[in-house]
Amino acid sequence: MSTVRVLDCTVRDGGLMNRWAFDETFVRKYLLAIQNSGVDYVELGYRASTAVFSPADYGPWRFCPEELLGRVWNRAEGAPVLTLMVDVGRVDLDTIPDAKNSPVGAYRVAAYVNQGKEALALVETLATRGYETFLNVMAVSEAPPAALEALLKTAGTITPLRAISVVDSYGNLTPVQTKALVQQYREWSQKSVGFHGHNNLQLALANSLAAWEAGAEFLDASLGGMGRGAGNTPVELLLPQLGYALGNLEPLFELLERDIVALQRQLNWGYRVPYVVAGLTNQHPREALALVESGRGAIDSGYFRRAASQVAIPV
Amino acid sequence: MSTVRVLDCTVRDGGLMNRWAFDETFVRKYLLAIQNSGVDYVELGYRASTAVFSPADYGPWRFCPEELLGRVWNRAEGAPVLTLMVDVGRVDLDTIPDAKNSPVGAYRVAAYVNQGKEALALVETLATRGYETFLNVMAVSEAPPAALEALLKTAGTITPLRAISVVDSYGNLTPVQTKALVQQYREWSQKSVGFHGHNNLQLALANSLAAWEAGAEFLDASLGGMGRGAGNTPVELLLPQLGYALGNLEPLFELLERDIVALQRQLNWGYRVPYVVAGLTNQHPREALALVESGRGAIDSGYFRRAASQVAIPV
Repeated sequence: MSTVRVLDCTVRDGGLMNRWAFDETFVRKYLLAIQNSGVDYVELGYRASTAVFSPADYGPWRFCPEELLGRVWNRAEGAPVLTLMVDVGRVDLDTIPDAKNSPVGAYRVAAYVNQGKEALALVETLATRGYETFLNVMAVSEAPPAALEALLKTAGTITPLRAISVVDSYGNLTPVQTKALVQQYREWSQKSVGFHGHNNLQLALANSLAAWEAGAEFLDASLGGMGRGAGNTPVELLLPQLGYALGNLEPLFELLERDIVALQRQLNWGYRVPYVVAGLTNQHPREALALVESGRGAIDSGYFRRAASQVAIPV
Repeated sequence: MSTVRVLDCTVRDGGLMNRWAFDETFVRKYLLAIQNSGVDYVELGYRASTAVFSPADYGPWRFCPEELLGRVWNRAEGAPVLTLMVDVGRVDLDTIPDAKNSPVGAYRVAAYVNQGKEALALVETLATRGYETFLNVMAVSEAPPAALEALLKTAGTITPLRAISVVDSYGNLTPVQTKALVQQYREWSQKSVGFHGHNNLQLALANSLAAWEAGAEFLDASLGGMGRGAGNTPVELLLPQLGYALGNLEPLFELLERDIVALQRQLNWGYRVPYVVAGLTNQHPREALALVESGRGAIDSGYFRRAASQVAIPV
């Protein structure tokens, strides 16, 4: 098994369910718990452009301005690397200072395969400013294999790029498929590889462990699996499986039981029939999300029948 | 991959949460949905002795009297095998007629390793009466390996015994461990092997798939994972992964979304922090069940700290 680093994306990914409107008290409590857990990276949100998204419509973790980070971040010895995500075309580079003037240590660039060129240019710019850089390639189950291969081979030539993540955007992968993808990414890019799972089919943890077996060195997870739709790999399950002593995880479990469980009732991510259907039929979660939000079911809405008729046997 | 048969134990295992008090209307609806799904075995409950358990305290599926089964069971062409479970020492053999006079086709004998001799005697008696017979060995993570090996080797000599199931009683297994156990059971017994998973660590489905990869030929599952505590492998997730066409599973998903989701709110099985702690520390779920029932948490009750201090790193 490779040495593995865990990135917790509770606030960044959970923000997809509440427009990043977490209050600062919660985020401070979260940071304390996560810092004590031994997690390696903590992704606190996006650095999105206020010209693209209005601050009137979104909470602070959509933008993570430097002064906010300076206020909540305690650069302690042994602390995880403060990480932000940026989307190609939705970031204002003027808001990103040189790394030596920021508490941020790493940026992850999220991009679809057809945005590869812009994504790699962004990686290079951020690396020049002194940040550790990662590339998350989204919706790979839909991407033309030749385009994916070309992107990964080009990415392999970008020296400062730290790792490339396999992202199971539609929550469709099995452990066997995850292993194969991780191996493929490693072969094509000759880079370190990461994995970001989704839990539509209750396989996020198993897929993360399969990725690890296949040599992945970076694994994403979040508290209680907090995230959009069915959610992510639960960090409280992942860490013990990676060998973290349970006795050191009490602050994490305390936050989970006292705050995250209540947040889950409010934000409503987790195992739901429409997300199962989306995962099994390899579809973007948007229709399933709308059904869950409206309280309609996959059967009554006809979504099950439409989705099932579009696919062959999903093995 | 081996040919695999699926046993649905929704009512039998779900009954652990409501003392088997499902009404007949629900069970008839369930049977119709499950019969249409292509599942191979349907375990409707226990055949428990009314001398051991009072019918005043338990619903009908604790006892599954022959006349009740005759009323709800429609022996259609291609129907799954009607299956009951019996516990060693808790069954009255006088209530079990010859198979030719009963709708029941199979019995599964559940036993702890130290009950092996009585369990195998029960298997032989049931086989003599014409039933297909299975052995479920419980709580194997606690059993002395030598005793388990001896039991499995003796079981291997019982010609009519159809298969022996690996039961992840404490919800503690990983896919890697599950594979190893299935291989070990096959080697020791030279019999077909089955797997019954629990979902404490969100690995029930992944473990079932790992068991299949290791040659298991019988997999247990239930609708929505209905069962005690964290629940079982969800049948709606397992069947598609085994290659069942999703389009044929609409009746199953309909029952899931219209009835099982509501039952889950009422009976309260599923992912809860105390069950995670029990799974990670390989403990009987009784303490976690009591906490969830009382609404207390694993942290506030001190359960987390006590459990974590009892174990080494649970890899």
